[in-house]
Amino acid sequence: MSFVDVALGSDFPLENLPYGVFSTAEVSSPRIGVAIGDQILDVSKVTQFFVGPELSRRHATLGESTLNGFLALGPSAWKEARKTLQRLLSKSESAIRDNAALQASAMVPQKEAHLHLPAAIGDYTDFFSSKHHAVNCRRMFLGEERPLTANWEWVPLAYHGRSSSIVPSGTCVRRPWGQQRTQNTEEPIFGPSKMVDFELETAFLVGPGNELGMPIPVGKASEHIFGMVLLNDWSARDIQLWESCPLGPFLGKSFATTISPWVVTMDALEPFRVQGYDQRISPLDYLLNEGANSFDINLEATIKPDGSDKAHTICRSNFRYLYWSMNQQLAHHTSNGCNVRPGDLIASGTVSGPQAESLGCMLELSWRGTKPISLGNGVSRTFLEDGDEVNLKGWCKNTNLRIGFGNCVGTLLAANAF
Amino acid sequence: MSFVDVALGSDFPLENLPYGVFSTAEVSSPRIGVAIGDQILDVSKVTQFFVGPELSRRHATLGESTLNGFLALGPSAWKEARKTLQRLLSKSESAIRDNAALQASAMVPQKEAHLHLPAAIGDYTDFFSSKHHAVNCRRMFLGEERPLTANWEWVPLAYHGRSSSIVPSGTCVRRPWGQQRTQNTEEPIFGPSKMVDFELETAFLVGPGNELGMPIPVGKASEHIFGMVLLNDWSARDIQLWESCPLGPFLGKSFATTISPWVVTMDALEPFRVQGYDQRISPLDYLLNEGANSFDINLEATIKPDGSDKAHTICRSNFRYLYWSMNQQLAHHTSNGCNVRPGDLIASGTVSGPQAESLGCMLELSWRGTKPISLGNGVSRTFLEDGDEVNLKGWCKNTNLRIGFGNCVGTLLAANAF
Repeated sequence: MSFVDVALGSDFPLENLPYGVFSTAEVSSPRIGVAIGDQILDVSKVTQFFVGPELSRRHATLGESTLNGFLALGPSAWKEARKTLQRLLSKSESAIRDNAALQASAMVPQKEAHLHLPAAIGDYTDFFSSKHHAVNCRRMFLGEERPLTANWEWVPLAYHGRSSSIVPSGTCVRRPWGQQRTQNTEEPIFGPSKMVDFELETAFLVGPGNELGMPIPVGKASEHIFGMVLLNDWSARDIQLWESCPLGPFLGKSFATTISPWVVTMDALEPFRVQGYDQRISPLDYLLNEGANSFDINLEATIKPDGSDKAHTICRSNFRYLYWSMNQQLAHHTSNGCNVRPGDLIASGTVSGPQAESLGCMLELSWRGTKPISLGNGVSRTFLEDGDEVNLKGWCKNTNLRIGFGNCVGTLLAANAF
Repeated sequence: MSFVDVALGSDFPLENLPYGVFSTAEVSSPRIGVAIGDQILDVSKVTQFFVGPELSRRHATLGESTLNGFLALGPSAWKEARKTLQRLLSKSESAIRDNAALQASAMVPQKEAHLHLPAAIGDYTDFFSSKHHAVNCRRMFLGEERPLTANWEWVPLAYHGRSSSIVPSGTCVRRPWGQQRTQNTEEPIFGPSKMVDFELETAFLVGPGNELGMPIPVGKASEHIFGMVLLNDWSARDIQLWESCPLGPFLGKSFATTISPWVVTMDALEPFRVQGYDQRISPLDYLLNEGANSFDINLEATIKPDGSDKAHTICRSNFRYLYWSMNQQLAHHTSNGCNVRPGDLIASGTVSGPQAESLGCMLELSWRGTKPISLGNGVSRTFLEDGDEVNLKGWCKNTNLRIGFGNCVGTLLAANAF
């Protein structure tokens, strides 16, 4: 228990303590904080309490304006920091609890904070690790009988994404223009996308990483995975469809990617570790990683139409539906010697599950626009409309504990004039 | 003419003055320099001479350890800097010429310098803008009669590349491991690539760039293009072939990308401006950019086998063979609102031309490994062998002037044990 009030059902009890980067009206410089209840502990104000072997000489790292330096330190430092923070914020510890001046400077209400990207993201990669999603995409576009591509169950498929357009939760997203070709016209047109979609994803932030040419073995991958965020891979399906052959998605994705600002650590997620997807074909040796390497994380997407006060849940999925684990993704990513760096972001791909309600994007939910999705009160959608607010949620829950990811929210704005 | 000796045929006469970032044994901190003859002018040592309206209050920017700050300033500052540098280095100007102490500190022999990446590259994009290359790839893999994909003449196709593994000329490249499936086996294997290739490309560095959601019109694109480098998009064809469907190239490319360290400015390239490719289908309005928007840049690739002292030219091409111009590439890239940032790197794709000798990669030159390429003396190649040194060259030449890009060199090392 913490001396900070944590409401029942809060995403941020003492057992969570996710890291983020925030600023306030009074102090505009971004700094590292951890969320607790509806407050933020400003880590830069309490560095003197980090006295363990890993962090006693690294107070400057804790005072930086991004998490990159901290991510580079690796698991021993992360565990030491977590222990220190849990102690500092616990009911039994007086250091902050009984120091009114320190509390006044170091505890910031979340509603007064502006949340930034948690790290400078050098490279962003998006995997395609839900088999349900992959199968649905092929069925939808190539007919019922087409199986997965031959490589799918062997290769954890992925593409490089665009780093520059990753934005933190709360940033509005502009409907993109792009080339589209409908089935009725011979020539493509250039105009605002008519098929803007979200994708319900998670992503992990890379820790120390590797030198170029030195792969990370699958058994060591977890030492380079710091924590997770929710990720909305906004997608313009009409642009994506026309451009993707043969080089993959480009402008259909790069107009915006939203992430939740609080990074939930793997240490906080540990109680929710579960067995992963039963891989039908035994992976090649470099991807072989037996044991419980997935996590039971509930995922949900809501849409709130412009002017409505009610967010409607249109998808309920779970991280454990993914076929490839994060360890396998990272081992694969570096297997050719490619280097990953602290703060790199590696996303799951759309997390679709086996049930109709667990499909993680509108393309699947509306089956390519053919089946309207009800938002209640006679309102429905096939793809997103201007003013729609999309929110992703994620949480873990067992009989003793609930931790969550906070919001990953964005509102779709009408296209600009070109 | 410069007071610095410039050998006949040098890539770096006074009319070129490309920018780079270098360090030396004596001063290990990277700093901005310009190449002249076989020397480097250390810009950080001569900032006091930049007294024009754009740069007189920005000396700190000229003293930074990357070009990013300078790139952000835009064309007026770039032109002012070029004018100042050409004056400072000219035979008629005494400021450096007659100051032995300043010369000793500010002029560094290139052979004593270590060259770094010229900018922190936030995002790297690789286009696919040679029609010859695109046609050859389709013919090679899908048979003679298959045309281009339907989108090729409408969309300047591209994929996001990997920033972390971009290295400067001179860095050795390790043969990557990866999944491959030969036609003879049902299941893929994991092993060192047997089809390592180079790709002869150029790339441009982005200047000021745009805000997210605000496209750069094609008519304004040139204001955001600072200069060009040579780029070797190392490719492992077996890995690439097996992984690419449907998300495009990933590990087949991300093990290394080499760029030449000297950024040749668009101002230096201006005398070599030529009409671009005759686009068969009139581009959509947002890509319409009439006029001479290409450049007559000779390109060449050589291979020097391990132990040999002779580099053998295996390809002679030209930048003007590209179908899509850099202006069109940048306008397309930002047309969906995607933001580009100072220092972003945007590559051309393999620059193949119409002649047999102008094919820009071994995949094409050896026609997927079926036609060995002679390196003279009975030595031949289909793909690269361990120890091969690949060098790319680029230069422009008219009756009065020759400017060049320097080297873009890398040696392929044998695969590590996994």
